[in-house]
Amino acid sequence: MAHIDLGVDETEFPGIRGPLRFRPETARPLLELVEVLLRGPHPLTPGERELIAAYVSGRNECTYCCAAHSAYAAAQLDEGMTLVDQVRADLDSAPVPAKLRALLRIAGAVQVSGREVTPELVKAARAEGATDLEIHDTVLIAAAFCMFNRYVDGLGTLPAADPGWYAQASERIVTAGYRQVV
Amino acid sequence: MAHIDLGVDETEFPGIRGPLRFRPETARPLLELVEVLLRGPHPLTPGERELIAAYVSGRNECTYCCAAHSAYAAAQLDEGMTLVDQVRADLDSAPVPAKLRALLRIAGAVQVSGREVTPELVKAARAEGATDLEIHDTVLIAAAFCMFNRYVDGLGTLPAADPGWYAQASERIVTAGYRQVV
Repeated sequence: MAHIDLGVDETEFPGIRGPLRFRPETARPLLELVEVLLRGPHPLTPGERELIAAYVSGRNECTYCCAAHSAYAAAQLDEGMTLVDQVRADLDSAPVPAKLRALLRIAGAVQVSGREVTPELVKAARAEGATDLEIHDTVLIAAAFCMFNRYVDGLGTLPAADPGWYAQASERIVTAGYRQVV
Repeated sequence: MAHIDLGVDETEFPGIRGPLRFRPETARPLLELVEVLLRGPHPLTPGERELIAAYVSGRNECTYCCAAHSAYAAAQLDEGMTLVDQVRADLDSAPVPAKLRALLRIAGAVQVSGREVTPELVKAARAEGATDLEIHDTVLIAAAFCMFNRYVDGLGTLPAADPGWYAQASERIVTAGYRQVV
């Protein structure tokens, strides 16, 4: 059970879904941010951006966010959950394009601290064709999930009891986006 | 110089100000979030909430965010920068109300990881009169600054060259809020 009374049935609204309902004033900008970052017009596909979110959430050991964004990534990547699992298990050997690998390395640095992002990491991403926008958004996606993961776990929310919940949620995210969540 | 070309004079737009101008689509929800969290109607004063932001930013060693939100807190607390410095130097001995100290301890836990927030920390805050809303917002303020700090440092932005910049910025934040920043 969460640390505070979220006013919802937590089995129906796992993870961030309870806090979003508890405080709609903050839910609106949070959902708008994630909609723009993960689903707005972009050179990186929604699946690739969800993969960055899942990767960072896994490194932060946030069970709900990692399961949710792994499912959302898998639903939008040709290679599905196999690729998500490979990236999370060993980024160096995972069969991802070189540019995405370099961006995921930047995301991994951000997960530790903003000060871990070195000119070398940025140069490596640029050498694989990453643009300023892609580098900017990778840093902000990774930073944003360092927020979301702490929000979800800092309030002691529960992940979904039924693993099937995430696949079901992903259908709705893929078709209708994040704004409809609250 | 920042890792990417932000398209602004970084001496004029230090820290987060450059990235906010570079990507207005994400700036809007980011500024809306911080406006609601730090300046919206609340049982905690804006000064107290800015103090939480400054405390977390200091622990993340984000020079720009810590200087900025320390200035914004000082401008809105009767005790000014003296109290901000005391809280940042030693929370246990700083002369803050017991409830605020307990909330700052929760914020300090969130800075490390959401999973560091224990039922005991929450119980201690509740014993000093903290409400569910205050606990929720403390967790989200702390989590949000774990994002902002990583955003600012992950892009390699520069802090203000002139320390007087922060006091000047604080006048505008206190009177006009965050939405006008971009």
